[in-house]
Amino acid sequence: MTIVNRRIVLASRPVGAPGHDNFRLESVAVPAPAHGEVLIRNHWLSLDPYMRGRMSTSKSYADPHPLDAVMLGGTVGEIVASGHDGFAVGDTVLAFGGWQEYSLVAGEALRMVHRVDPKLAPLQRYLGALGMPGMTAWYGLHRIIEPKAGETVVVSAASGAVGIVVGQLAKRAGCRVIGIAGGPEKCAYVTDELGFDACLDHKALRDAQDFDEALGAVASAGVDGCFENVGGLVFEGTLRRMNAFGRVAVCGMIAAYNGEPVPLRDPTVILRSRLKVQGFIISENPADMAEAFRELAAIHIQGQLKYRESIAEGIESAPEAFFGLLQGRNFGKQLVHLV
Amino acid sequence: MTIVNRRIVLASRPVGAPGHDNFRLESVAVPAPAHGEVLIRNHWLSLDPYMRGRMSTSKSYADPHPLDAVMLGGTVGEIVASGHDGFAVGDTVLAFGGWQEYSLVAGEALRMVHRVDPKLAPLQRYLGALGMPGMTAWYGLHRIIEPKAGETVVVSAASGAVGIVVGQLAKRAGCRVIGIAGGPEKCAYVTDELGFDACLDHKALRDAQDFDEALGAVASAGVDGCFENVGGLVFEGTLRRMNAFGRVAVCGMIAAYNGEPVPLRDPTVILRSRLKVQGFIISENPADMAEAFRELAAIHIQGQLKYRESIAEGIESAPEAFFGLLQGRNFGKQLVHLV
Repeated sequence: MTIVNRRIVLASRPVGAPGHDNFRLESVAVPAPAHGEVLIRNHWLSLDPYMRGRMSTSKSYADPHPLDAVMLGGTVGEIVASGHDGFAVGDTVLAFGGWQEYSLVAGEALRMVHRVDPKLAPLQRYLGALGMPGMTAWYGLHRIIEPKAGETVVVSAASGAVGIVVGQLAKRAGCRVIGIAGGPEKCAYVTDELGFDACLDHKALRDAQDFDEALGAVASAGVDGCFENVGGLVFEGTLRRMNAFGRVAVCGMIAAYNGEPVPLRDPTVILRSRLKVQGFIISENPADMAEAFRELAAIHIQGQLKYRESIAEGIESAPEAFFGLLQGRNFGKQLVHLV
Repeated sequence: MTIVNRRIVLASRPVGAPGHDNFRLESVAVPAPAHGEVLIRNHWLSLDPYMRGRMSTSKSYADPHPLDAVMLGGTVGEIVASGHDGFAVGDTVLAFGGWQEYSLVAGEALRMVHRVDPKLAPLQRYLGALGMPGMTAWYGLHRIIEPKAGETVVVSAASGAVGIVVGQLAKRAGCRVIGIAGGPEKCAYVTDELGFDACLDHKALRDAQDFDEALGAVASAGVDGCFENVGGLVFEGTLRRMNAFGRVAVCGMIAAYNGEPVPLRDPTVILRSRLKVQGFIISENPADMAEAFRELAAIHIQGQLKYRESIAEGIESAPEAFFGLLQGRNFGKQLVHLV
């Protein structure tokens, strides 16, 4: 029986916001795995903002994704055929399988394939709260912001895959937590369901002064930690409200991903307020990832790690779901349910 | 005998660059110290960029300096009359005596008066390499940049009071050191006399692209540490050349002190290169200051701490020397020799 793999490749590089023209859906036959190879049926694909950067050739922390290659991305799935002693048919695995229904993995790339426990959590959770976004939240909060009880922490993209976890961990650390999200529904979610102390709806704020006043009203003691996922005016406005010795974990600057960067109009705030502003990428900190996973799993087992997912159905829906992610249309972790 | 104290007060707040109108020279009689007070004859006054910020009312790390009050500043001098058991006539002291020939110090302010050893170094050195600028250099380099041997460190305002020490300490740490200074004379000094590996004359570079190419030519392995004293385009250009996990100690942003801040056009570089950008003020780190002083003094005793001073004569010359400092006309530590 021939297995047909449907996959999406990078057809061209976007100028500004990506569109359907930049992707191409292909159907190809999948061979049986040779010795040392495994064939994974990908049940879930993770969509993440970093993918936008890889579509371009501009300098970043990683090389640009090659044209005509399958779009990259984290996946969870199941081994359906194995030529490798370390993996058996039926194993559930986290992998970097890309935007496709089946992945044939061999050699070095097998180091990115990790068995996960399907009894601990639904499989897709390993792409969210128990996966890269959850560990990203943990690292930025505990290794860069290092919050103390009673401090105020601001989280942008608060209802996104990372922000949801940042806020819950900051509450557990005894902080006052202020989310920033787009729209009343998202704000209600992070305050009412996740227990954030306040949330600013940036869509309801007209300009920088509006934002400054709104943040001042909910952060009357100033801001000590900022977990930055967005960049742009919200970033600048939060910096202005930071207390002396504030810490900023720069995780994402999605506001700039589709075009020109948004300038930081007054970088002297870093000196005036003696801030530490630090960028990071979770995959570069493997030792911390292990610790983060253990702590997140422990909270999850207690039933205390709340999470939310936006699910698109079928590989063909991945591009549209990705556009929505870049525009903030997702609510929680953006996933694609494959096969 | 009546002692007459000549002093300079803040007469008005500058808009843009400060001018002579903002200062007023006064002569007043000095009373003998009462019980618990000391009278210091100030031999040397330190001029520093931070004073510009205190002349304005804009938000900073310190309150604005009051109008009609004596301009603030570090001094070294000699006790000429004492009503305090802890200080004897003839003691040489570091103090925060301000822009004046004599300071009458009492109460809480006495905590800022510290005896210094006139045999260890010329008195004015306690305002430079062995004082706040030297300790600032030590802290930013060793506590924020934390350089490893073989790394490349960029120092802006390289021939200034702080930059001179940063570069020498970075060379001692085994780094490749690149200075940025204004003019060929300053550049020759930091390479030929201080042993920096290279120096860029920012006055000879026309624009950001020029700077980028020049820095790339002398920092072919990229930049790992940046000690920032200037801000503006030089700051942005250095960030662009930084390697992954680079560290930036933000000590000063003099480019913005007289007017509008210079935007950081592309803050996403912090994320792309996973930089740590941290502002600091030496006086907030007293434990480190003590360690810094010990280390600087040890190097000085070995005759290995090179230093340079620009000296203005007489209190009446302080405003003009201060304007020069803000425009980069000083060469090394800017001092005023008083009485």
